[in-house]
Amino acid sequence: MSFHYSNCVPKGDSNATEDILKAAANPKVISFAGGLPAPELFPVAAVKKATDKVFDQFGQQVLQYAGALGYSKLREQIAAIMKTRQVNTTADHIAIATGSQQAIDLVAKMLINPGDVVLVEDPTYLAALDVFRSYGAHLIGVEMDDDGMRMDDLQQKLADYPEAKFIYTVPNFQNPTGRTMTAARRQEMVKLTHAAGVPIVEDDPYGAIRYAGETVPPIKHFDHHGEVVSISSFSKMLAPGLRIGWLTADPAFLQKYTLLKQNADLHTDNLTQYIISQFLMDEDLPAHIKKITDVYEHRAKLMLAEIDHEFPADVYHSQPEGGMFIWVQVPGGIDSDELAKRCLEANVAVVPGSAFYSGKAEPGTFRLNFSNMNDDQIKVGIKRIAKVINELGTN
Amino acid sequence: MSFHYSNCVPKGDSNATEDILKAAANPKVISFAGGLPAPELFPVAAVKKATDKVFDQFGQQVLQYAGALGYSKLREQIAAIMKTRQVNTTADHIAIATGSQQAIDLVAKMLINPGDVVLVEDPTYLAALDVFRSYGAHLIGVEMDDDGMRMDDLQQKLADYPEAKFIYTVPNFQNPTGRTMTAARRQEMVKLTHAAGVPIVEDDPYGAIRYAGETVPPIKHFDHHGEVVSISSFSKMLAPGLRIGWLTADPAFLQKYTLLKQNADLHTDNLTQYIISQFLMDEDLPAHIKKITDVYEHRAKLMLAEIDHEFPADVYHSQPEGGMFIWVQVPGGIDSDELAKRCLEANVAVVPGSAFYSGKAEPGTFRLNFSNMNDDQIKVGIKRIAKVINELGTN
Repeated sequence: MSFHYSNCVPKGDSNATEDILKAAANPKVISFAGGLPAPELFPVAAVKKATDKVFDQFGQQVLQYAGALGYSKLREQIAAIMKTRQVNTTADHIAIATGSQQAIDLVAKMLINPGDVVLVEDPTYLAALDVFRSYGAHLIGVEMDDDGMRMDDLQQKLADYPEAKFIYTVPNFQNPTGRTMTAARRQEMVKLTHAAGVPIVEDDPYGAIRYAGETVPPIKHFDHHGEVVSISSFSKMLAPGLRIGWLTADPAFLQKYTLLKQNADLHTDNLTQYIISQFLMDEDLPAHIKKITDVYEHRAKLMLAEIDHEFPADVYHSQPEGGMFIWVQVPGGIDSDELAKRCLEANVAVVPGSAFYSGKAEPGTFRLNFSNMNDDQIKVGIKRIAKVINELGTN
Repeated sequence: MSFHYSNCVPKGDSNATEDILKAAANPKVISFAGGLPAPELFPVAAVKKATDKVFDQFGQQVLQYAGALGYSKLREQIAAIMKTRQVNTTADHIAIATGSQQAIDLVAKMLINPGDVVLVEDPTYLAALDVFRSYGAHLIGVEMDDDGMRMDDLQQKLADYPEAKFIYTVPNFQNPTGRTMTAARRQEMVKLTHAAGVPIVEDDPYGAIRYAGETVPPIKHFDHHGEVVSISSFSKMLAPGLRIGWLTADPAFLQKYTLLKQNADLHTDNLTQYIISQFLMDEDLPAHIKKITDVYEHRAKLMLAEIDHEFPADVYHSQPEGGMFIWVQVPGGIDSDELAKRCLEANVAVVPGSAFYSGKAEPGTFRLNFSNMNDDQIKVGIKRIAKVINELGTN
C-alpha cells in the first residue's frame, strides 16, 4: 500500500532551488542563494537576559497552553510598532502567527478554494507561490518595474479577473527583486482594489531594514475600509529562529483567523512570545535595527559596486534601498536554470529567476542575497558569476 | 466589501465549547472543562537551566533559520524515546511539528481532498474533527466500548467505505473518553487496515502518562508495512507552552510532509527544539513523568471515588488508567448541551459530549478533566454536578 496524497501535495519530491540550497552547503561554494540574516548580528546576550527574566517572572505561565490570538502584552507592543510605521491601530487588530510564513499560509487557507484566482507580482516570494498552489489557486502574475507592481497592469488584471480572491504583494525590498513600491502606487492600488472589491494581502518582512531613501508607509496605512491584511515578522529585525510573525487586520477577520490558527498549532510557542515581549521592553529595538542596516548597507553597496565593475554593462540589476536581495537579468535569453547551474559549477550559488514566477519566467534572471556573506566572499563570488556570464556571452 | 472566505473556514464565529471555556475563566466556576496539565508540576528551574546552556553553546545557531524536518539531535533523542515505547525506529523516521496539533493538521492536509471519507472513533478529539472538517472530509464514526474502537464495527465501516483515506485514532487514555484500546485490538486493527489498504493515523499525546494497568505498545509497534503514522508530543509529559510534537513515519511520507511543513511555518521554533533537546540530555524525563503520573493518579482516583459516592448508581463513567479525562453518561436521554449549561449555572464547567462526535451525539454525555484541579475543587465540583444530575432526574 502507498499513501494516496491530496491535491495539496506537490507531485515532485524535489525542485531545482532545493538542490541548489543543498549544494550551497559545500564549504567550497560561496552562497548568495539563501535568504539568511547575518547571524553575527543576533543579540544573543540580550535575548538570553530577556529569557531569564521571563522564567523568573512567568515560569509556569509560559510553559502552559495559551490563547490562539497570541500574548496580549506582545500584541500591544506590536500595535505600538505598527504606529511607528504609520499604521494607527490597536492590539485587537493584531494576531500572532508562528512566523509570517504561517500568516501567509492561514490567510491563503481562509480565502482560496481550488480554482480561485490570486493575483501576485511577477516575480514574487517563492514560498508564497507554493502555499497558494497547495490550496489550488489559479495564479495570475502582475507585471513589475523598478517602482514595484505596475498599476496599469493591475487595473487590466482586475478587469480580466473580477472574481480574484486577493492580491498578494511584498511592497518593501521585495523578495526576490529588492524593489520597493512607491507611495503613489500604494495609494492608487488601494483605490483600484477597493473599487474592484478585491482585498490586498501585504507581506512586509523587510520594511524595517531600510538603509537608503525615504520610508514609504505600508499599504495598510492607506486602507480605510479594512480591506488590507498586513503581515510582518521579527525574523529580519531580531531573529528568525524565534518563529514570531503577526497579522494586522480587522477584528472580524482575526476572529476567523483564530479558528484556523487553533486547527494549525493551537497557538504560537508561548515562551518565545514572552521572550520577544521582554526584549522589546528592556532593549532598544531601533538601535538594534540600525546596527543591522549599517552592515547590510555596506554589503549591498559593496555587492552593487562589484557588479557594476565586473558584469557586462548590458546586465540589469535592481537598486535596493533595504532588505536582503538584488535582482539580476542577463540579456540574451539564456535559461535561468542553466545560468544558475553554471554558477554552481563555478562554486557560487544563486537562485534562478524561474523559481519566483507564477507563470512563464523571464530568462537570464537570478536572485542574489547580500546579508549573509562577508566582504571577501562578496568580491570573489561576484567575480565568479561575472566569469560565467562572460563565458556564456562568448559561446 | 467583505472577505469571501473559503470552504475551509467554519460558518459560525463561535461554538458552545468555546463559550463554556470562556465562562470557566470566572473564578467562581470550578472547571473540569479544559485539558490543561497541572502547571505546578512544570520543571521551570530545569527548563531555565537547559535554556541558559543552549544560549551559551548555540546562541547564534538557535536564533537562525533551520531545516523543516527539525533539529537532528532532537530527532535522534525522540527515536530513542520511541524505542522505549517498543517502536524500533531511527531519526530518519522522525519529523518535528509545532505541537502534535500541527502534525494532525498537516497529515490531514496531505491526505484529504474535499469529500474524502475519514474514519474516526466516536467520540474523539474535537480539534481533530475541526481539522478534518476544514479540509472537507466526510467523517464516519466507528463505535467504541471500554476497550477502545470496536473491531467488528471497524470491519463493517471498512467494507462500507473502502475508499476511506485514513483512520484516526487516539489509542491511549483517549480524549474525551479516557479509554485505552487493548493490544489485541491494535494488532487486529493493523491487520484489517492493511488488508483494506487504508492507513492509520495514531495520535498518542497521553501514552506516557500511565498510572495504572499494563503498558500497551503503540499501534505503530504492530506496523510492518509503513502504514501507520504515529503522532506524539512533549505537551503532556513536559510543557505544552513549548510547542513541540513529532511524527513517526516512513521517510518517503516525511519527504512529502516536509514540503507542506515548509509552507506552514518554514520550521518549528528553533530555540525551543534546542531547549527540549538539552533538557532530555541533562534531566531524568522518566522521573519527571513519574512525578506527574503520581499526582494525576491521586486526582483521578479521588474524582472517581467522588463520582461513585455522589452520582446516581445508573450513571456510567469510564475507568481511565492514565491521561487526563473521565467520560460520563447520564441515562435518560437528556441533551448534553443542556446538561453542560445546567452545570455551568451551578458554577461547574464540563465539556458536553456533543462536541466530540462526528455525527449524532450520544445524549447525556460529558468530559471531565482531572489534571488541573486540586482536591477541594474536585470534591466540591463533583458534588455540584451530582446536584444537577439529581435535579434533572426528578424533573
